Amino acid sequence: MEASALLFRRGCHSESCSILPVMKRTHYVADLRPQHAGQTVTLAGWVNRVRDFPGQYFVILRDRSGIVQVTVEQDNPAYSVAGELKAEYVVEVTGTVRERGEAQRTDAYPTGGIEIVPSEIRLLNRAATPAFQVDGSPINVGEDIRLKFRYLDLRRREMQDVLRLRSRVQAEITRFLDGEGFVNVETPMLTRSTPEGARDFLVPSRLSQGEFYALPQSPQLFKQLLMIAGLDRYFQFARCFRDEDLRADRQPDFTQLDMEMSFVELDDVLELNEALLRHVFQAVLNVELPSPFPRISYREAMDRYGSDKPDLRFEHALSDVTALFQGGDFKAFAEAGTVKAMVAPDLTRKQIDELERVAKQNGAKGLGWVKRTPEGFSGGIGKFVAGVADALIGATGVQEGQTLLFSAGEWRPAVEALGAVRNALRDMFDLAADGPRFHISWVTEFPQLDQDPETGTWTYMHHPFTAPHPDDVALFGTPRQGEIRAQAYDLVLNGFEVGGGSIRIHDPEVQAKMFGAIGFTEAAAREKFGFFLDALSSGTPPHGGIAWGFDRLIMLMSGASNIREVIAFPKNNRGLDLMALAPSPVDDAQLAEVGVQVRLPAE
Amino acid sequence: MEASALLFRRGCHSESCSILPVMKRTHYVADLRPQHAGQTVTLAGWVNRVRDFPGQYFVILRDRSGIVQVTVEQDNPAYSVAGELKAEYVVEVTGTVRERGEAQRTDAYPTGGIEIVPSEIRLLNRAATPAFQVDGSPINVGEDIRLKFRYLDLRRREMQDVLRLRSRVQAEITRFLDGEGFVNVETPMLTRSTPEGARDFLVPSRLSQGEFYALPQSPQLFKQLLMIAGLDRYFQFARCFRDEDLRADRQPDFTQLDMEMSFVELDDVLELNEALLRHVFQAVLNVELPSPFPRISYREAMDRYGSDKPDLRFEHALSDVTALFQGGDFKAFAEAGTVKAMVAPDLTRKQIDELERVAKQNGAKGLGWVKRTPEGFSGGIGKFVAGVADALIGATGVQEGQTLLFSAGEWRPAVEALGAVRNALRDMFDLAADGPRFHISWVTEFPQLDQDPETGTWTYMHHPFTAPHPDDVALFGTPRQGEIRAQAYDLVLNGFEVGGGSIRIHDPEVQAKMFGAIGFTEAAAREKFGFFLDALSSGTPPHGGIAWGFDRLIMLMSGASNIREVIAFPKNNRGLDLMALAPSPVDDAQLAEVGVQVRLPAE
Repeated sequence: MEASALLFRRGCHSESCSILPVMKRTHYVADLRPQHAGQTVTLAGWVNRVRDFPGQYFVILRDRSGIVQVTVEQDNPAYSVAGELKAEYVVEVTGTVRERGEAQRTDAYPTGGIEIVPSEIRLLNRAATPAFQVDGSPINVGEDIRLKFRYLDLRRREMQDVLRLRSRVQAEITRFLDGEGFVNVETPMLTRSTPEGARDFLVPSRLSQGEFYALPQSPQLFKQLLMIAGLDRYFQFARCFRDEDLRADRQPDFTQLDMEMSFVELDDVLELNEALLRHVFQAVLNVELPSPFPRISYREAMDRYGSDKPDLRFEHALSDVTALFQGGDFKAFAEAGTVKAMVAPDLTRKQIDELERVAKQNGAKGLGWVKRTPEGFSGGIGKFVAGVADALIGATGVQEGQTLLFSAGEWRPAVEALGAVRNALRDMFDLAADGPRFHISWVTEFPQLDQDPETGTWTYMHHPFTAPHPDDVALFGTPRQGEIRAQAYDLVLNGFEVGGGSIRIHDPEVQAKMFGAIGFTEAAAREKFGFFLDALSSGTPPHGGIAWGFDRLIMLMSGASNIREVIAFPKNNRGLDLMALAPSPVDDAQLAEVGVQVRLPAE
Repeated sequence: MEASALLFRRGCHSESCSILPVMKRTHYVADLRPQHAGQTVTLAGWVNRVRDFPGQYFVILRDRSGIVQVTVEQDNPAYSVAGELKAEYVVEVTGTVRERGEAQRTDAYPTGGIEIVPSEIRLLNRAATPAFQVDGSPINVGEDIRLKFRYLDLRRREMQDVLRLRSRVQAEITRFLDGEGFVNVETPMLTRSTPEGARDFLVPSRLSQGEFYALPQSPQLFKQLLMIAGLDRYFQFARCFRDEDLRADRQPDFTQLDMEMSFVELDDVLELNEALLRHVFQAVLNVELPSPFPRISYREAMDRYGSDKPDLRFEHALSDVTALFQGGDFKAFAEAGTVKAMVAPDLTRKQIDELERVAKQNGAKGLGWVKRTPEGFSGGIGKFVAGVADALIGATGVQEGQTLLFSAGEWRPAVEALGAVRNALRDMFDLAADGPRFHISWVTEFPQLDQDPETGTWTYMHHPFTAPHPDDVALFGTPRQGEIRAQAYDLVLNGFEVGGGSIRIHDPEVQAKMFGAIGFTEAAAREKFGFFLDALSSGTPPHGGIAWGFDRLIMLMSGASNIREVIAFPKNNRGLDLMALAPSPVDDAQLAEVGVQVRLPAE
């Protein structure tokens, strides 16, 4: 991982930065270099591997910083101990640093220029034969085995690097926000169940039997309460809980960086977050992010990239070709509200089939395609586009040998299907590889309201306290209320939403319009939000904030393949802790104390 | 609170330290001084109070930094808006800073030398009449009302200061430990219920119906697993949950600063913690703590102060006078294993009765007392001590006019009862007032094992993985195993335990001895600790750590009277959130989804 070098520099990987004697250890192993030759050092760690040659053991010693070779010849007092060593034994080694000869030197690891000649090897602990190798060789067991023996899995370099990156990012965020006067406040973990939103995890109460706490889905209400309380600037690394069915990038509990600020406008929140992210990427990864971040409206993101979280490391924009087909013979396109086209490389039939599958999974009826030939277009829907070939080339810039892909239908499903195909194309051809390592942007001007296409019912897009754009307030209650733009924003990194937030409503009149638009009577609003409405009427300042999906951010910063790789002890995708074996049955007496009993559905 | 000045300096209370325009706000109010006279400023906050004089309004504006006076005369364009303002309205004020005349100046608050002459007052929000005043006048409602309207209560200066102190301490701890190479790791919140220890909070699982997660009582096993995993140094601000009956200084969930280190010995852990605490107290409170911290053994703490968490801000040590009474006529003392005496001021009968009540609550049969007179001793058990008067004066140093208090019995109840009386005496006479603001020390050499006085059964004192003192290992399994000293330590601040930890056992042979001593067969140990024993045998380094009771530490640092005062949204002592109204009943359908139903005890 590219992060390591910098982590080491900031962390405690040199003898000089520590105030601790750390037992007898004098160095982390990765600190040693040829210039230490002749020095006596004491190291401690795990036996990564032992190579046994006639009259010689090469013990590879590992600590969290890396590895170093301990060379033990037959006349060495530690020779017999070395003979007992096996993988994952814990040892303390005292010895002299010796520069290796030309022939023995290696660049395979940072300490490859030296070796340790021990005067003593203390065996601190033995180890059972590990369930799998953690010595740097490729991992050859499934994820379930890794999770069951997570304490072994975490010994691997990649896992250690991720956890240290995560820790460094937390520390830099804390440092920055503390310096900017943000107050870190811990909000309740045992709170009230709300019928809105995702499914709650429930905790039966012993002192109030028959009643339940809920674990927080987010600190949303509490952070707004802190602004009402005049804290002015708040942040927290908040554990949040949603009892949803799990996907590859979901966990039953997750961490968000939660922030809220008072007396701010949208630009203030965005600028603060940009400065924070620039600081973090610079300090931890030595990566410079742009200033300012690009902003793209929801409408443009959807129109050009078919996604409200577009991956902008590569272009392959969607072209709008609706007009070219209107009134034409090709009914499927002529009658569609929207026809979108996207240029792709020369695709095989198998690849096109695969992409069509993606389009259909994302709501399209099919995926139109043609190939540009020297003569015009051929294959797929070639005969239907012959009449508009020049215009199509003009609109899309498609070149000879390239494939052009189409989606058609209502605007939203049409753009979303082709947007999903765009991402699949990225994965198929590694299109993002030539782009920047990180592309970060804001998506803004989300709609305030969302309408159910079937029932026509209006609901909120973010949450009912999101402030509308001031210019659009007059549209509430009119047929055009779907056009109201919210003062909401998402932070998008490499095609993933890594944050989202909004300016909140502080004006009771605007709040009343908003409740009206989504069909809440005053009584219904009170029923749902209870005490929070009282709080809002007790002197609420203008305020707004954001929450970052912290696990996902770390996944992207570290290049990990899924969210479980950046969590020390994750659940698997059935919500199980395979190591500690949770959840588990409990005694009925324990349940009786908290006033519940098990009820299983009839077989 | 004395912390404020320093918090302000480090935080964002001056115009220069912020990167944010903060809406139109140019200053926090408490930054303004006579040298700003003539400057145009924009402020934002709450109306703390309005004083209405003929032709003049004095609007006291409050933000999180403090208050400032806005003076609005009849000819001012903002005069009519000022007339509308009420307590807790939210306003933005633009105006000119004016130095006050000699007669108007006040030292009552830091901006008392100036006032703001507004050019505009923008009313940003109205407020309902608050349930109680938060304008700096003494709070005149009960705690239940404060908790119900916590968003108002948190507007008060004292509460804001506590939350900012807490945040500053967290930030400084993070900065220090990050710099020392500690890795901040988030351990699981949904984990396995264990029959040991306190009562678990349970969370029914929906995906594995009939099974339950438990909320973590502490990350103890996980932090040891991280050492086994080779993380080397770990910390976390961990939320912990114990479903115990609540006392004044307990919450169902609480925060601990959790730490663990590998390849360390006891001194390493203590020195690291001392350096951290010195850094934090210096950076946040400008208080210098000693180096090194005093250490006192468990035995000495109990013998001298009758407590394993002695308040050392004052002396009033217990004197051992057992020998003086042995073989004498006073049967109650002659036959006692231990007789302790403590000097007190001249006490009234009422005070003695009160102290005797404390002694009895703490396991004593009574509280002996005498007064020293010019002739010797009188009152109470005077006639029984007449024969040893000189020796008693020599042993205790009691002066004429002072009272001498006694406890007698088995060693532990005798010292603990008089220790409790010592604390009661402190509260009665404010004995700690003349001592240092903070007295911090380590209590060390706790017993490894605890014996039930009735059954004779041995159990662990800390937990079964605590390492014994290496010199004492041979005592396991002998009649003297009660003398084995643990490598455990408590951090004691002003008579409160604010931290505790130990070096852990990493040697399987020592672990087997320990299990043997507390009567665990191998099968029983496996039944109780399951996968953790496998982990311990997979290459465990020497390691140890500590957990700080973070809420309690902040309570002591801030001078708050109880733990609820340092938590933003605490539960009351019946486990209720009086604001959000949690816990609450939930729909039966919601319970069915997670496979439980309510079972209430028969009336």
